[in-house]
Amino acid sequence: MTTTTAHGVGVSPGQVSGPVARVEEPLPEPKATPAPADRDQEAARIGPAAAAVARRLAERAESVKGEARAILETTSAMAGDPTLLANAEKLVRERGLPAPRAVFEAAEEFAALLASAGGYLAERVRDVRDVADRLIAELTGTAPPGVPELSGPAVLVARDLAPADTADLDPRLVLALVTEEGGPTGHTAILARSLGIPAVVAARGVLAAGAVGAVVDGDTGEVETLDEPVAVQVAQRPAQRGWDGVGRTADGHPVKALANIGSATDAAAAAAAGAEGVGLFRTEFCFLAATSEPGVEAQRAAYAEALAPFAGKPVVVRTLDAGADKPLPFLSATDEPNPALGVRGIRVAFDRPEIVDRQLEAIAGAAADTGAEVSVMAPMVATADEAAWFARRARAAGITRAGVMIEVPAAALSAAEVLDAVDFVSIGTNDLAQYTFAADRMLGALAQLNDPWQPALLRLVELVARAGRERGKPVGVCGEAAADGLLAGVLAGLGVTSLSMVTAALGAVGASLAEHSMATCEQAARTAVATAEPAQARQAARDVLHR
Amino acid sequence: MTTTTAHGVGVSPGQVSGPVARVEEPLPEPKATPAPADRDQEAARIGPAAAAVARRLAERAESVKGEARAILETTSAMAGDPTLLANAEKLVRERGLPAPRAVFEAAEEFAALLASAGGYLAERVRDVRDVADRLIAELTGTAPPGVPELSGPAVLVARDLAPADTADLDPRLVLALVTEEGGPTGHTAILARSLGIPAVVAARGVLAAGAVGAVVDGDTGEVETLDEPVAVQVAQRPAQRGWDGVGRTADGHPVKALANIGSATDAAAAAAAGAEGVGLFRTEFCFLAATSEPGVEAQRAAYAEALAPFAGKPVVVRTLDAGADKPLPFLSATDEPNPALGVRGIRVAFDRPEIVDRQLEAIAGAAADTGAEVSVMAPMVATADEAAWFARRARAAGITRAGVMIEVPAAALSAAEVLDAVDFVSIGTNDLAQYTFAADRMLGALAQLNDPWQPALLRLVELVARAGRERGKPVGVCGEAAADGLLAGVLAGLGVTSLSMVTAALGAVGASLAEHSMATCEQAARTAVATAEPAQARQAARDVLHR
Repeated sequence: MTTTTAHGVGVSPGQVSGPVARVEEPLPEPKATPAPADRDQEAARIGPAAAAVARRLAERAESVKGEARAILETTSAMAGDPTLLANAEKLVRERGLPAPRAVFEAAEEFAALLASAGGYLAERVRDVRDVADRLIAELTGTAPPGVPELSGPAVLVARDLAPADTADLDPRLVLALVTEEGGPTGHTAILARSLGIPAVVAARGVLAAGAVGAVVDGDTGEVETLDEPVAVQVAQRPAQRGWDGVGRTADGHPVKALANIGSATDAAAAAAAGAEGVGLFRTEFCFLAATSEPGVEAQRAAYAEALAPFAGKPVVVRTLDAGADKPLPFLSATDEPNPALGVRGIRVAFDRPEIVDRQLEAIAGAAADTGAEVSVMAPMVATADEAAWFARRARAAGITRAGVMIEVPAAALSAAEVLDAVDFVSIGTNDLAQYTFAADRMLGALAQLNDPWQPALLRLVELVARAGRERGKPVGVCGEAAADGLLAGVLAGLGVTSLSMVTAALGAVGASLAEHSMATCEQAARTAVATAEPAQARQAARDVLHR
Repeated sequence: MTTTTAHGVGVSPGQVSGPVARVEEPLPEPKATPAPADRDQEAARIGPAAAAVARRLAERAESVKGEARAILETTSAMAGDPTLLANAEKLVRERGLPAPRAVFEAAEEFAALLASAGGYLAERVRDVRDVADRLIAELTGTAPPGVPELSGPAVLVARDLAPADTADLDPRLVLALVTEEGGPTGHTAILARSLGIPAVVAARGVLAAGAVGAVVDGDTGEVETLDEPVAVQVAQRPAQRGWDGVGRTADGHPVKALANIGSATDAAAAAAAGAEGVGLFRTEFCFLAATSEPGVEAQRAAYAEALAPFAGKPVVVRTLDAGADKPLPFLSATDEPNPALGVRGIRVAFDRPEIVDRQLEAIAGAAADTGAEVSVMAPMVATADEAAWFARRARAAGITRAGVMIEVPAAALSAAEVLDAVDFVSIGTNDLAQYTFAADRMLGALAQLNDPWQPALLRLVELVARAGRERGKPVGVCGEAAADGLLAGVLAGLGVTSLSMVTAALGAVGASLAEHSMATCEQAARTAVATAEPAQARQAARDVLHR
């Protein structure tokens, strides 16, 4: 028997063992030759194939609910996206490419646009490639890549998982998820947590092992693979306690549990799940499909639809986090060598303040229309000067509460001055980790650095929370760190006053917070911050919170 | 009379006014059509044109000396680079491109490789484009872009300046340099300081003004342009005091003044200028021209040539700062969406430790050959774990002093733990600023964020220096911040124990340090760190140090 151990990043807790089911690799890149005999006939194959793929995804969407359903619906819609299809058909007709190759190239072009936009949009790249793979499989008559039909409980091992792969996983059959790539903030991590499936990402070498059985520790990130079958074992996990929907510690210190939303659908789901409010309302959805900047009235209506379920409740609206230094359409490619370090977020607005002014006007209007208690915040602020600039514009638009994201290390290091300029801040741990560790959060090879348990990251959070406490101003966290029940206790102990997360995580995080007193959280925070690496920080917090 | 004021980043001090001389814009992109009638004949035009350009640059190199000469010689060599020319000729012959277009495409391809490598190599992109422009001008019979012949004193205004443009500037005629793009760490800034010419970079809008006269303040970064002539005025600048070659404050606290070198030529120049040692020996030169990894003996000989002038003196050798996640040749393109946040620096070695082991062996050998007091340090370290990993390998190679660069914010935030793992650290302010502000240091639009006077950056330096003092371990600075005489006093006051800089800046920085007591430097540091923005920090330091 040969045993191989891979060390990845544990992103969803729990210890299990069992047989391995391998997720099929994506299809090879389709060849550009031979040229089709009849270009029009070849182009005409694309539409029906797309319709078939979209229909199958829509059918799968109907069989599930919640977040999984939304993801499958989005993927289904993307498969029928008229621009993508038109571009692919054009490539067949004008360049004589075979249909599969044309789909591939059209999708890659779109993926490159998304990647150059950075941030939230860049995380959609995997979705586009997934859709392209399904279309190509349909066109070539091969089996689509993805999760195999499971006949019994198994540990799923994959290079990476597409949202559509993970969306309809059956948690009764899937013992754990293990991926060779991916990071702690990707879809695999988010969905695994929401389904309560142990998961390890960035477990390099796990595919090469050709394993038959596996022992997975979603807490430490350790994955042992074996070349022979392993019995199914599921270690006892703490049962999820009930949660009354109000975020607070065991001794009643309020720590708001808020939802991250990016559309009216998300908003309805968050409200239905009993979110106390919204800590991060991403407004990119309003611009994504547009080929030019949507007018103030169109924006107002779109925002109002998402705000409506939160009448009388707090909602923090983040202004556009665009990645390109071009005017609208926002998805123009740029020639920036490092888009994540480029003119993105609020920086786009410094030369074109009218874009942010129109958005602020629309947000103020939507707040009036719905009665939601709206605040606004700007992304990618680096200095107190920039924070003051944004706050002035927000107030001029009639919005009384203005804040900024803390996702650039410099803003965290200037937290005192930044907080003097605004009413609140919200720490975006995903991007903050990326810049603090100079490690692209989309690169699997650097996922260990992007671990939200990194002590250096926690020290920045501490610095910001302390500045907030000294000024009596709220400091939220809206990165994926907030969706980790154990880390939530540490963040509360550091002085964070609200946690905003994917709706699916609200129950677990709320219940976890309610288990500990603030004094215990503070002790967990002190010990975690004083460690030298993520595994030590996690263990230190566990020792305090789970004893 | 119309006056327009632009606010840039002052990178070389002094106040002047005078007429404007505009530097010609680069040529437009050459067209890909019409195809040449005879491809071989067209391809044959490239060689002689390159020879002519190389010859003219070599002639200009002979008329100047020092840094300017080295730059012109490098540019001349690049114009005759056989790979570039062969690639261009191939594009003519295989794709039927006109020669100017072929040169353009070949150069762009090479520039993209350099850009994806990041760091030092990415800064060479401008050089490659400059050479291409000169070749294209030669091929099309047009005047090459660049600095016009000056008939009298003038303020040079440009979009950006290529090294070859600035190399043979006559400081008696050039009153000041003002660029619309560029950053505080680019060649314009370095050369302006070494020539003692006031300079402002990233002065956005200064070209659009179509100015006839200008008033330039190299301290504040303010540039006033006028649509009518302005009399030549040069404000009195403090005369440069003598310097005895030993870095210390007025009351004798040692602060070593060291040189940055990247070749044996640099080393000879630094030794001739009386540098106390080398604080940053970049080893990329040894790999640049190679198509595969140079052998240990070849590396040893190359390093020994650069170390020889420093027998008995300290030299800090930085191991390879490669930008690609590929094996050698190091300039392979990668598909990383953000190379600066990718697998670069020491990260390349985690999967292939034998590369760094071989380099360490060669460095140890070169140290033995020359008697230089060699230390080694690793680039792009993010955690104490990584620092310990490198120190182990250095010691295994027989090198007793091992340190790391502090250029990733996380490493600064973990300075205590990092310093526990190594013997010293050296803060690379250029990259540290880039990551701390999430602002690509090659982007003119974000140059204000990359100002080394940013208080958030100074706070990180303070944090690292404090950890060093507590442990009795040296903390150097080897970014361009060290070459700013005023900032040098602040860095010394923060607790930095050595400053490493371009050789040309040694005299001015050494003299500036020798003017102030450590107590005064500490007071300047305290006031600068407590400000909210770079202009305030600079002014606060000036108020203390120049009173």
